Amino acid sequence: MSIDLDLLCINTIRTLSMDAVEKAQSGHPGTPMALAPLAHLLFTRVMAHNPKDPYWPDRDRFVLSCGHASMLLYSSLFLTGYDLPLDELKQFRQWGSKTPGHPEYGHTAGVETTTGPLGQGFANGVGMAIAETHLAARFNQPGHEIINHWTYAICSDGDLMEGISHEAASLAGHLRLGKLIYFYDDNRITIEGSTALAFTEDEAKRFEAYHWHVQKVDDVNDLAALERAITAAKVDPRPSMIICRTHIGYGAPHKQDSEKAHGSPLGKDEIAGAKKFYGWPEDSSFLVPPEALAHARTAVERGKAAQAAWATRFAAYAAAHPALAAELTAALKGDLPAGWETAVPTFTEKDGAMATRASSGKVLNALAPVVKTLIGGSADLAESTLTLIKGEGDFQADSPGGRNMHFGIREFGMGAILNGMAVHGGVRPYGATFLIFSDYARPAIRLAALMGIAPIWVFTHDSIGLGEDGPTHQPIEHLEALRAIPHVTVLRPADANETAVAWKVALTRKGGPVLLVLTRQKLPTWDRSVMESADGVMHGGYILCRAPGPVRVVLLGSGSEVAICMAARDILEKEGIHTQVVSMPSVEMYLEQPGRYRDQVLPHGIPVVAVEAGRSTLWYGVVGPRGDVVGIDRFGASAPFERIYQEFGLTPDKVAERARALVR
Amino acid sequence: MSIDLDLLCINTIRTLSMDAVEKAQSGHPGTPMALAPLAHLLFTRVMAHNPKDPYWPDRDRFVLSCGHASMLLYSSLFLTGYDLPLDELKQFRQWGSKTPGHPEYGHTAGVETTTGPLGQGFANGVGMAIAETHLAARFNQPGHEIINHWTYAICSDGDLMEGISHEAASLAGHLRLGKLIYFYDDNRITIEGSTALAFTEDEAKRFEAYHWHVQKVDDVNDLAALERAITAAKVDPRPSMIICRTHIGYGAPHKQDSEKAHGSPLGKDEIAGAKKFYGWPEDSSFLVPPEALAHARTAVERGKAAQAAWATRFAAYAAAHPALAAELTAALKGDLPAGWETAVPTFTEKDGAMATRASSGKVLNALAPVVKTLIGGSADLAESTLTLIKGEGDFQADSPGGRNMHFGIREFGMGAILNGMAVHGGVRPYGATFLIFSDYARPAIRLAALMGIAPIWVFTHDSIGLGEDGPTHQPIEHLEALRAIPHVTVLRPADANETAVAWKVALTRKGGPVLLVLTRQKLPTWDRSVMESADGVMHGGYILCRAPGPVRVVLLGSGSEVAICMAARDILEKEGIHTQVVSMPSVEMYLEQPGRYRDQVLPHGIPVVAVEAGRSTLWYGVVGPRGDVVGIDRFGASAPFERIYQEFGLTPDKVAERARALVR
Repeated sequence: MSIDLDLLCINTIRTLSMDAVEKAQSGHPGTPMALAPLAHLLFTRVMAHNPKDPYWPDRDRFVLSCGHASMLLYSSLFLTGYDLPLDELKQFRQWGSKTPGHPEYGHTAGVETTTGPLGQGFANGVGMAIAETHLAARFNQPGHEIINHWTYAICSDGDLMEGISHEAASLAGHLRLGKLIYFYDDNRITIEGSTALAFTEDEAKRFEAYHWHVQKVDDVNDLAALERAITAAKVDPRPSMIICRTHIGYGAPHKQDSEKAHGSPLGKDEIAGAKKFYGWPEDSSFLVPPEALAHARTAVERGKAAQAAWATRFAAYAAAHPALAAELTAALKGDLPAGWETAVPTFTEKDGAMATRASSGKVLNALAPVVKTLIGGSADLAESTLTLIKGEGDFQADSPGGRNMHFGIREFGMGAILNGMAVHGGVRPYGATFLIFSDYARPAIRLAALMGIAPIWVFTHDSIGLGEDGPTHQPIEHLEALRAIPHVTVLRPADANETAVAWKVALTRKGGPVLLVLTRQKLPTWDRSVMESADGVMHGGYILCRAPGPVRVVLLGSGSEVAICMAARDILEKEGIHTQVVSMPSVEMYLEQPGRYRDQVLPHGIPVVAVEAGRSTLWYGVVGPRGDVVGIDRFGASAPFERIYQEFGLTPDKVAERARALVR
Repeated sequence: MSIDLDLLCINTIRTLSMDAVEKAQSGHPGTPMALAPLAHLLFTRVMAHNPKDPYWPDRDRFVLSCGHASMLLYSSLFLTGYDLPLDELKQFRQWGSKTPGHPEYGHTAGVETTTGPLGQGFANGVGMAIAETHLAARFNQPGHEIINHWTYAICSDGDLMEGISHEAASLAGHLRLGKLIYFYDDNRITIEGSTALAFTEDEAKRFEAYHWHVQKVDDVNDLAALERAITAAKVDPRPSMIICRTHIGYGAPHKQDSEKAHGSPLGKDEIAGAKKFYGWPEDSSFLVPPEALAHARTAVERGKAAQAAWATRFAAYAAAHPALAAELTAALKGDLPAGWETAVPTFTEKDGAMATRASSGKVLNALAPVVKTLIGGSADLAESTLTLIKGEGDFQADSPGGRNMHFGIREFGMGAILNGMAVHGGVRPYGATFLIFSDYARPAIRLAALMGIAPIWVFTHDSIGLGEDGPTHQPIEHLEALRAIPHVTVLRPADANETAVAWKVALTRKGGPVLLVLTRQKLPTWDRSVMESADGVMHGGYILCRAPGPVRVVLLGSGSEVAICMAARDILEKEGIHTQVVSMPSVEMYLEQPGRYRDQVLPHGIPVVAVEAGRSTLWYGVVGPRGDVVGIDRFGASAPFERIYQEFGLTPDKVAERARALVR
């Protein structure tokens, strides 16, 4: 009896997926048809989750790394009672529906992360497991297992081909993330045909090389075999990869085991044939047998009971460890501790010249003891990005409570892991590398922006100012390219105090990732008793230095180029040309300000010269038709940085010259 | 005697590297010190190369994937007689020198590819071996081995941690690229400390899983062991990985085997200590013992002899197979066959509406029989990017003469492999995927631009016009972000004929990669007997449709948005507003045109509305202060594409409305 009901549920997933793709005339039916048994098993028997509270903190996490199989997830969420009615499945891939082509975090209840760009879900899951392991280490107490959940993921051959799966798997094995249970959908079919066209590696051996626990299940339809493998995976202390032999388009008379079942509607005849094979009414559409629905919906009661049991345990924990419980509750909510801002240091002229990466390191270290959710590290550049939290241990397999992570030279993996940590919650993750390598991590930064989550990035060595490493390491187009991603906030502070405020923004700004862009070279610390307050950073751009008389020209810079503007100002003021200097660490935030504010910063009719050691295109829009831009529209060069600035014409003299030309 | 001379050469590499870094007060001394024996062996005994002709086509290739160890390469090039005098080594990392921080292709004789951004050199080497294998299959004849060389690469832990090494290694193993011989610099040290911090995978097992031949050499100083391993590698039909145990900073009394030897000058005392250990005069600087120089310089005579022997063989080949020899010579020069342009089809209105990906597929297939150097494929999207050459076989281990490559779902690997093929020469490589995944490949596109090489990219599904796949797959900022990379040419043709001309540009433009950006959806084929010629694409932007009277407004579009401009024009003309429509497939190329030309396309004083389904920032600069831009500054949505265009306001009505507002 129970087996029949299982099969009924599985075939309901299959037919709903086929029908939704057919109705939309767009989508990917074959993989949901193949993986329905696995999804059914996970959602109804294996995972601890509560469809009525998708935010229960101790739920098991599920990642569909092959996001194109979205109907597998939508069908499962609907059947097990999430807030996703059948009508939404009928609106698959339509404007305004809850069922977009690929699963979107924050858009559909029960979707734990946005997937589709292959490989990233794989790494998101690693980030979730890192967050879980860390929180468990920090908060669990003897007799009180408050954080204890699993992360499940399904990945495809595409996920395993993408380089990021290597980065994340190697790190997961190193960290012995035993709470990870991954399934590889071994269907032997890619878009171009057989995987034998390009993908013949020995996946089992490869994952064993990463120190994963590898098992094979010969037939994904064998629920008992799947359950045995999952049980074994739970016992093994290593991350687990369960290689499941599957058949894409399972049951379709002519398209099973063919790339034709991958990315297009099956067509009426194939659907009818598959339904016949399942013992389904051939002319039905979106049929949900009541017994199947009832069987799948038992997930609701199980979920409620599981969460209630956890709530009871949590109450006992809170009674025994009230401070920890309060801290955990705040961390899970994403609340910052009261008064955290007072921990942020201010700097004075006496601190002298300081690279913004150095002031960032000081600010991070001042914040870390207060904001204990901060956890992160770099892609093997901690000594250069200055992102180590002093006095805190390393996050390693044997010390999961540590807050200093060592991601290895894996920028993209790091980015997607940060995203996984952020969507898991309870931590505020940060990652660091050189700005040039933002290109390596770019697809993960984009997905953070699309998800509206706010991991913090620390990008140092932000321009030709890094000097001798040369053009392979000197960002030119990167500021412009990152600002072009919607919902990304780029902050390029001009001195130590701006860096401190930038960190405040990073901790409080919502809706997308915040990127701190910092120098390798030293910059002056402006005397704020003479200059305007660095709190102006909160407005994206602000008047750093007012003119002593009616303004005739504005010099606008970001980051290290503000110092050049200040020196150019001295030249101009000596000539009687009253000059206002604007620091604009974030164009995005500046453009959000009301017109009245912006009219003060860049007054109407006053010419503006913008200076930034990067592509000039964007700035032409900011300075307007009467403005000028001193930027860099070529690749960099290998030399001491002062020489490069000189050769590239980024000097006070040149800036003053350009300003003079506008004033005349 | 011979052993002494070897050691003298090895220690010369070591001391030159230390001294250059010390003089520059910047650089990476430790790895050259460790790897000097391997470099010496390769450059003086193993590799067939001619220092006096770095372009000899059948030379063995050498890739220093860990480009930060550039002094290892510079020292070796100087010692073996390349055009790199000692004085240049003394100018390491200085303005205008031939010895930049990281090796730069096209800048320094003997540098085969630009390296530094980790992992890419690894994949470049795979591309070189693919080119070699393909050319050998196409051109070698019984008794005539004209193409027969090896590709050697040295890679670091960073290279192996980066995901791209997985992508390239998995593909190389699949393709059984037996001419690849790679060395892993197993020094157990990363920037943050021991590799045990983050990198504990079993590399040997991992590469065996990729079907590589793996060997270990316990001590890189053991030249005989290295030679034995190389000999064994040559015999084995698989790609080879030789794992060499090394000691970073070898010989430095306190910094050997420490991350302190990695990225900073050693300091006077350590240098003196190391020199003492080597038996070197402690107070010497840039000392080159004459015996060492003479010994290393024997590479010149060996190289000349090897090349001369090849020239003799080539002459015999040319006598026996004159047509093939001529074809190979032209291919190696990068010359296109006479009259190739006549193969490019033209399209008429009768061809009807056609996606530019479809017309691109037709053009590629028309060109391929004539331009036989064209070889490429897609990252498992051939059916979608329409980049298969019909009637040509697959490039596979058993059919290396095939021209259709299957890169697998490995966009970044594909990009760096294309670069390796391009610098190898003899082939014109192309790669294809969806535009959204240009982000995955972006670091390789940047290096192509920096190297000034011209692989061709076919990016389809170029906007919200792809429809239902939704925001994870819809490019928004990608056009802007790609245009921001110096030396990149982005071409977004508006119809079939523009696509044909775009392919001509792709085949002839030099100095950087050309990116063809194409639609999934159908576009009208403009009647060129009424419209202006599509040859205007050569100017980046051109008047597609002239106004029947004095122009009052210009509508400017790229790609699919040109059709919207044309429809908006009809609305405006009906109202008596004379409208000029400009198609601008390439902003970069347009901005290269003389002012006189540009004044015709966008006449002074006439308002312009630019329309592009992407970020608007760039276009504000093009349209000027009196212009307007209809773009997209948010993420996309999952729905049929017509609906998204409607909801996002990219419609003829809206464009006409914006134009009207400017005219009034």
